[in-house]
Amino acid sequence: MEINEKIVGFLSEVKKMKPLVHNITNYVTTNDCANIILAIGGSPVMADAIEEVEDMVNIASALVINIGTLNSRTVEAMILAGKRANKNGIPVVLDPVGVGATPYRKEVALKLIKEINFSIIRGNMAEIKVLSGLEALSKGVDSEESSEDGKEVAINLSRALKTVVAITGVIDFISNGEKVIAIENGHEMLTKVTGTGCMSTCLIGVYAGVTKDYLAAATAGIMTMGIAGEKAYEKLNKSEGNGSFKVLLMDNIYNFSSQDIIKRGKANEL
Amino acid sequence: MEINEKIVGFLSEVKKMKPLVHNITNYVTTNDCANIILAIGGSPVMADAIEEVEDMVNIASALVINIGTLNSRTVEAMILAGKRANKNGIPVVLDPVGVGATPYRKEVALKLIKEINFSIIRGNMAEIKVLSGLEALSKGVDSEESSEDGKEVAINLSRALKTVVAITGVIDFISNGEKVIAIENGHEMLTKVTGTGCMSTCLIGVYAGVTKDYLAAATAGIMTMGIAGEKAYEKLNKSEGNGSFKVLLMDNIYNFSSQDIIKRGKANEL
Amino acid sequence: MEINEKIVGFLSEVKKMKPLVHNITNYVTTNDCANIILAIGGSPVMADAIEEVEDMVNIASALVINIGTLNSRTVEAMILAGKRANKNGIPVVLDPVGVGATPYRKEVALKLIKEINFSIIRGNMAEIKVLSGLEALSKGVDSEESSEDGKEVAINLSRALKTVVAITGVIDFISNGEKVIAIENGHEMLTKVTGTGCMSTCLIGVYAGVTKDYLAAATAGIMTMGIAGEKAYEKLNKSEGNGSFKVLLMDNIYNFSSQDIIKRGKANEL
Repeated sequence: MEINEKIVGFLSEVKKMKPLVHNITNYVTTNDCANIILAIGGSPVMADAIEEVEDMVNIASALVINIGTLNSRTVEAMILAGKRANKNGIPVVLDPVGVGATPYRKEVALKLIKEINFSIIRGNMAEIKVLSGLEALSKGVDSEESSEDGKEVAINLSRALKTVVAITGVIDFISNGEKVIAIENGHEMLTKVTGTGCMSTCLIGVYAGVTKDYLAAATAGIMTMGIAGEKAYEKLNKSEGNGSFKVLLMDNIYNFSSQDIIKRGKANEL
Repeated sequence: MEINEKIVGFLSEVKKMKPLVHNITNYVTTNDCANIILAIGGSPVMADAIEEVEDMVNIASALVINIGTLNSRTVEAMILAGKRANKNGIPVVLDPVGVGATPYRKEVALKLIKEINFSIIRGNMAEIKVLSGLEALSKGVDSEESSEDGKEVAINLSRALKTVVAITGVIDFISNGEKVIAIENGHEMLTKVTGTGCMSTCLIGVYAGVTKDYLAAATAGIMTMGIAGEKAYEKLNKSEGNGSFKVLLMDNIYNFSSQDIIKRGKANEL
Repeated sequence: MEINEKIVGFLSEVKKMKPLVHNITNYVTTNDCANIILAIGGSPVMADAIEEVEDMVNIASALVINIGTLNSRTVEAMILAGKRANKNGIPVVLDPVGVGATPYRKEVALKLIKEINFSIIRGNMAEIKVLSGLEALSKGVDSEESSEDGKEVAINLSRALKTVVAITGVIDFISNGEKVIAIENGHEMLTKVTGTGCMSTCLIGVYAGVTKDYLAAATAGIMTMGIAGEKAYEKLNKSEGNGSFKVLLMDNIYNFSSQDIIKRGKANEL
């Protein structure tokens, strides 16, 4: 498949270039985010001081903004960093964690979207619906929405914001406003470990650091996580749980190969 | 035993209800806290922005406040969130991490207790003694106090504060001011992993999200951690250490079952 | 070897004394830092509130300052804590994470060095070169510098700052301005897990908590990490990656013994 071949190329580029991904992110999943960036072959840096984020962006290949544990200080840093990234022409990826949970999150997310040109926005269905101005059931940071109307929601928000929009769920939908790609990789066990969404966004950031084809970069990040999740689950013993699964997941990202993409990748243009 | 049967019921209720537990907590153990809440069947959210904590409490089933890495901003958020939780009638659980280590921690903890009606307070013996106005040996965040006089300390503080008080140690003591329950589950290896106290408090928060019987909820949380710790240790090889133990601990919370409670639960009313 | 015998003595002292190590550190690697301090036998505490850091230093055996995710508030706390540690005569260890990445980091690091008398500074070659006023290639927080001129760089900065300087890399160089020790332990896999540098600095902090011989304490911390890394890699299966390696690393620190030092320690005075 054409998509899989592209992703194989990105993976090899990542190993060669080791793109530096600057993260302004939450303090819940940071360690796993840094390790997953290392695992796939990128180089992570976490920095959120207002005094330095612009300088950090200057040496980065991509910026990832995650509002999981936002506060007024870090929001200011996000805006400064995002604007600098736009100026420098490097991709900015948004993870609007729990955007429907509180008015403040929604207000911040909309402000970020207004002030920064995002290359890719990745969220679950509830989060993307909130950004789309649609009603969404939100319970904290986990989504209970079905992904039935994912194709339409993704393409509409993508057109409205002129950015790639990725909705992750049982089926993932990624759109650049023209095309929509659906991915059927992944495993339910990924919902039992905190931060697998954040980590997917980081993987997208890594791939976006080596290509301007952001539709494909988002597809690559989400597919990588999905396939690694499948493989991790296959190795999980019955007596093991989300502790071992997290370790296996990281290992499978570390050993992620072109063969995994070719044999298992299930991305299709709709 | 009557207590064990109650806990079996809570566990089944947790799996059904997936209570959302809002945590305002430290940045050392947050990831493990989120994962342990997922492991037992709850839904974790970490949020400490002053602008949003009250809204987050509005959708939560329980609030957990942990002062492990407090600062003036997060203390303000704790008070706002705690008051809202009281207003909404949802349980608030306090983990007074290292309260004896510095005057600031003690001052903050006493302020929190004054301004918020806590449903449950869980600490080690040194921490609970400090809150009780008793002298306590404190060395950082780990306790070196014996638990000999636990029964009395627990019941007295519980009466003074009109809250359930849980003291964890070799034997755990939980009191609602009338009854005292002692738990003899657990393993010393739990002291070799950072955050097992914080995680116990999170489990208490999960159970308190499905019952108003806070004495039993606190017992359930502590017993769950104790039994999972025992089982994790039994599976630990001699060449393994606290790295593997942490993974096994999480796995055993993930697979925690009514059979574990019935076969291993050692809670007794004194 | 004389050095190894010294380190054996420190290890036994650590197990006996359980030194309390106060960390003002980043939120990326904090959990691993706390667990590695527990693993080797120390007692960790993380605290960065301006209101309490001096009091926390008062009960600590060593202070570790790590600028990985610094901000203006925590920098103020670092200075207060560092000055108190100097006054109390306890060792202060600096980890100048990514100091070459932004002007702010450099400014802060130089300010810290001016205001605090550090006992030991540990960094990679790029970081130490920046502190030495030498040009260094910096890409985020990971170094791409070779360690060829490590001996000279270490001894020169050590003399200039009157502190022990440790440069970690393929070969590690540690100098007190007179002697230079080179360590040839370690494994490249250590660069695939985030925070192994931070964790080494924590181990140095633990050893510095039990001896005034800071050259040897720095050697001990770095050698401990190097040997544990070697052993962890030897146990790693081909299908495993940085997830399992991190767990194995922690386990090997937990089980680190005098035999490991005697059989594997490769420290030599140059």
